[in-house]
Amino acid sequence: MRTYYCGHLRPEHIGETVTLCGWVDRRRDHGGVIFLDLRDRSGIVQVVSDPERTPDSYADCEKMRNEYVVKITGRISRRPEDSLNPKLPTGEVEIYADRVELLNGIYKKLPFPVANADTEAVREELRLKYRYLDLRRERMSRNLRIRHETIKAMRRFLEDEWDFIEVETPMLTRSTPEGARDYLVPSRVNPGEWFALPQSPQLFKQLLMVAGCDRYYQIARCFRDEDLRADRQPEFTQLDIEMSFVEIEQMLDVNEALMCHIFKAVRGIDLPRPFPRLTYAEAMDRYGTDRPDTRYGLELVDVSDLVKDSGFKVFSGAVAQGGIVKVLPIPGGNDAISNVRIKPGGDLFKEASEAGAKGLAYIRVREGGKIDTIGAIADNLSPEQKQELLARTDAQPGHLLLFGAGDTATVNKTLDRLRQVVARQLGLIDESKINLLWVTDFPMFEWNADEKRLEALHHPFTAPNPEDLDDLKNARALAYDMVYNGLEIGGGSLRIYQREIQEKVFEAIGLSEEEARSKFGFLLDAFDYGTPPHGGIAYGLDRLVMLLASEESIRDVMAFPKTQQARCLLTGAPAKVDQPQLKELHVASTYKPKKD
Amino acid sequence: MRTYYCGHLRPEHIGETVTLCGWVDRRRDHGGVIFLDLRDRSGIVQVVSDPERTPDSYADCEKMRNEYVVKITGRISRRPEDSLNPKLPTGEVEIYADRVELLNGIYKKLPFPVANADTEAVREELRLKYRYLDLRRERMSRNLRIRHETIKAMRRFLEDEWDFIEVETPMLTRSTPEGARDYLVPSRVNPGEWFALPQSPQLFKQLLMVAGCDRYYQIARCFRDEDLRADRQPEFTQLDIEMSFVEIEQMLDVNEALMCHIFKAVRGIDLPRPFPRLTYAEAMDRYGTDRPDTRYGLELVDVSDLVKDSGFKVFSGAVAQGGIVKVLPIPGGNDAISNVRIKPGGDLFKEASEAGAKGLAYIRVREGGKIDTIGAIADNLSPEQKQELLARTDAQPGHLLLFGAGDTATVNKTLDRLRQVVARQLGLIDESKINLLWVTDFPMFEWNADEKRLEALHHPFTAPNPEDLDDLKNARALAYDMVYNGLEIGGGSLRIYQREIQEKVFEAIGLSEEEARSKFGFLLDAFDYGTPPHGGIAYGLDRLVMLLASEESIRDVMAFPKTQQARCLLTGAPAKVDQPQLKELHVASTYKPKKD
Repeated sequence: MRTYYCGHLRPEHIGETVTLCGWVDRRRDHGGVIFLDLRDRSGIVQVVSDPERTPDSYADCEKMRNEYVVKITGRISRRPEDSLNPKLPTGEVEIYADRVELLNGIYKKLPFPVANADTEAVREELRLKYRYLDLRRERMSRNLRIRHETIKAMRRFLEDEWDFIEVETPMLTRSTPEGARDYLVPSRVNPGEWFALPQSPQLFKQLLMVAGCDRYYQIARCFRDEDLRADRQPEFTQLDIEMSFVEIEQMLDVNEALMCHIFKAVRGIDLPRPFPRLTYAEAMDRYGTDRPDTRYGLELVDVSDLVKDSGFKVFSGAVAQGGIVKVLPIPGGNDAISNVRIKPGGDLFKEASEAGAKGLAYIRVREGGKIDTIGAIADNLSPEQKQELLARTDAQPGHLLLFGAGDTATVNKTLDRLRQVVARQLGLIDESKINLLWVTDFPMFEWNADEKRLEALHHPFTAPNPEDLDDLKNARALAYDMVYNGLEIGGGSLRIYQREIQEKVFEAIGLSEEEARSKFGFLLDAFDYGTPPHGGIAYGLDRLVMLLASEESIRDVMAFPKTQQARCLLTGAPAKVDQPQLKELHVASTYKPKKD
Repeated sequence: MRTYYCGHLRPEHIGETVTLCGWVDRRRDHGGVIFLDLRDRSGIVQVVSDPERTPDSYADCEKMRNEYVVKITGRISRRPEDSLNPKLPTGEVEIYADRVELLNGIYKKLPFPVANADTEAVREELRLKYRYLDLRRERMSRNLRIRHETIKAMRRFLEDEWDFIEVETPMLTRSTPEGARDYLVPSRVNPGEWFALPQSPQLFKQLLMVAGCDRYYQIARCFRDEDLRADRQPEFTQLDIEMSFVEIEQMLDVNEALMCHIFKAVRGIDLPRPFPRLTYAEAMDRYGTDRPDTRYGLELVDVSDLVKDSGFKVFSGAVAQGGIVKVLPIPGGNDAISNVRIKPGGDLFKEASEAGAKGLAYIRVREGGKIDTIGAIADNLSPEQKQELLARTDAQPGHLLLFGAGDTATVNKTLDRLRQVVARQLGLIDESKINLLWVTDFPMFEWNADEKRLEALHHPFTAPNPEDLDDLKNARALAYDMVYNGLEIGGGSLRIYQREIQEKVFEAIGLSEEEARSKFGFLLDAFDYGTPPHGGIAYGLDRLVMLLASEESIRDVMAFPKTQQARCLLTGAPAKVDQPQLKELHVASTYKPKKD
């Protein structure tokens, strides 16, 4: 229907007669001259009509309203000198409308303004209910485009540079819940049995390696029936990658190159390589977390050895019970953070206690290295200890030192949290920085206190470091996570490819031989038939695109997301279904709504 | 781990020391010299070891068995003149194995041979159970590659030539069964309510047009809970396309160019353009089907007017009751097809009666235009009628004319079926031909005799031809199917974009206002907010790839298909799940297995 997109018109088109289609972004009536900003996916161009120059369209243009769908034929002219608009890519031209055809109108009041100029916040429920209008807005249309460009960059890099092939794996598969809940699908043909929607294509991609596929990728939809947090959705997308005959260095190399390609294609940014690497142990030690944000300092310092014999029982007791004492040194914290905020009732105290800490000790460093703290600490530090403490934390006058003391996990969790809060509050985060790094050498297992068993930190198909095979329960894994400004965006590992080791890992996480056989028998079988060494990685695509688009919610980079109540406000899904449908599937709801 | 893929080695690499990884395709021991055919995704290369030239690897090579996974380092040499293998791309070279490392072995007997040379048929159940071995075989690995190349060609064409953007639509959506059964997913968070897996992204892609997305595509997984036929799977993939501000000519143009691009990229074939077009009426008239195979003639001829007053009541009665009489003229059919096959008990009679025909009349054309048939026909045709019949069917001596008489649908179904059977049997099908064509101008509705109501021939969002709005129930649709050698590979339409017309169509198919509101209210609402004219198409990707790969089952072009009992023989899905899982979802199976 059209000869050009609106946003593509430039001075070189002046004199041409063109046909454009789109929406009326805004209509302005300047007393005898009507201006229509005509919008399509590509942008906006100005259309002009007045009774003299465009007598055939003037009456029609008068009737136009915002968001009407129109087809306009007209001549492209240079704008008068005083109405050039350098902010608009089409700002040097305008269209004299010879003919305006209304293709469709607006028959109800718009629930919110859609025009490019209207950027104010709209309630999210309204945006999700009228998603087709929300996506028409510039920000969301840009986000969909960024998502597309990101996926396109991934595909092209993997296909063109490394000859990966994409393989589609099943959505209707077998329930092997490990970690998260499965979404289940009743089978009509096999009544009493259920499919599960995949939490990831993990087993299938490993089987593709057994099949000799060598280099596989997929932009894969995955499902987890979890209680939703801000950055979780019932269905999400991951870039899923697996390679055979690969060592860890090549895996990291391919993935760094992939990320560089994406950032260049989508943001025009050249990322420096190689990416920094931290072992898990180092990351926990220096940042208290396995996904550190390294855009700022505030590194933690372990002082357990220094205070283990201290008279201050909070410190010495923590160490005696196998725990640690660590310091978060905050330059300038003396002035910026008052005692009220650190003590019970204060916001920092609250952060600490939500992380599990029982208290929040501190030291203020004054001029001349004098320290200012509670008596119990001051009284129990020798001058040498004080000296050593200041030296080790590189504390200068003006520093505030916050202490965590207790079991290692809680101390790390507390200080990680405080570190992030303080960095944000003190403006230490350079938002222009893009810090991508690897964390490696994760432990194979972590203790699940609820279930009183070890569980796989990544998943039970992760290969243990061959150096640690003698003590599998404490082994490091050949696993690696990619961290982007403090968020994990990808995680992977080399996989187990020998039956014997896989069985030992299943045993370590408390899976009986029978359970292992019943759930993963096909994988164990595959190990008997020539499984190559292999490994892979999966990226959370929604989160990566969110970061690339500088958004704060993954819902803003998904076309049709669900709410935190796992509901689609647009279609109303989920919904009640007809009884005959359920009967055919041999299932029933057992839900009894509570009566008031 | 490797420096080259096996299949990439050529004479220019001679002299290099290389490292290769892969599977032992075959091991041959030629008395003192061991040959290993080493296979990876790229192909095969010959590895040689003997005690003199490669003393370090000989003992290891002796231990090798088929399908062992190995890493081999060696020197590339030219093969001796008498062992050059021109059939193999690597047939001019071989590797002297300096070092052979066993990465993994075979610990059980292979369920079937995997080597490239072993091409014999294997029972499908066995192939599906050990799919990771089946996919290792040359044919299947080639099919996965063709699938990948097909999808890649689609994406690149749509993105690079037409600036389509890919948008992911939800998998957990709302049940709106229309035609096929939905797969349902119980919602845990909203107990008593269900998601459905999409039968297609139809509504979402239309909403993306309302959102101004303009050109959308997606390689979309779709689900239909149908009883399976050879070419049906519970989950399948479609290439889904939608465009705004488009007329039918542009739509067909883009899609022809897309197909040409795919055939060129995947098969190296230049398809002629434009594709032929047939209206639905013409296709039904000439071929008795809306997806004609035009690689051969055998066109049907309507002779209703000629025989409507005939004394042969089978003919005249059919016309009198509003039906038709049509002829399938078969050149050379006289000699090729005996009366036994046409009469009750014969195979052609059986085909006809399975299509609903009550009988199968025939005329044999002898030398000099004499006809040979049953008395009732011979006696009731005047010489002029006989003459006209032969002229109209272009019948020559040796022709066999088969007659269908009765209601139009049954006659068409019968003769379509006979036409295909006869063409196959007489070897009239040129397998090298690729006939792609459009069928257009479908009727909007067809009568569903079971439910005693009209139903949408495509789907209820298809736009009626504006010329036919006065008589909607008999209107033609702005719909088009792409047919490839007698199989429908794609179907689409311009869509309704005005609320009033959509409501009339819902009414025509017997959807009450309340049902329409409850199921499709969000779509009707969208029509009030500036919906552009739009249209699209969807291709059955599995079927298209099957045809491109010259396979006969879509299961052979899917990595992990299900059986006709909707079961995955590899993972055992679907399967029983734990009661607590169901309890959390507030659902139960109502299936009571029958007792013997």
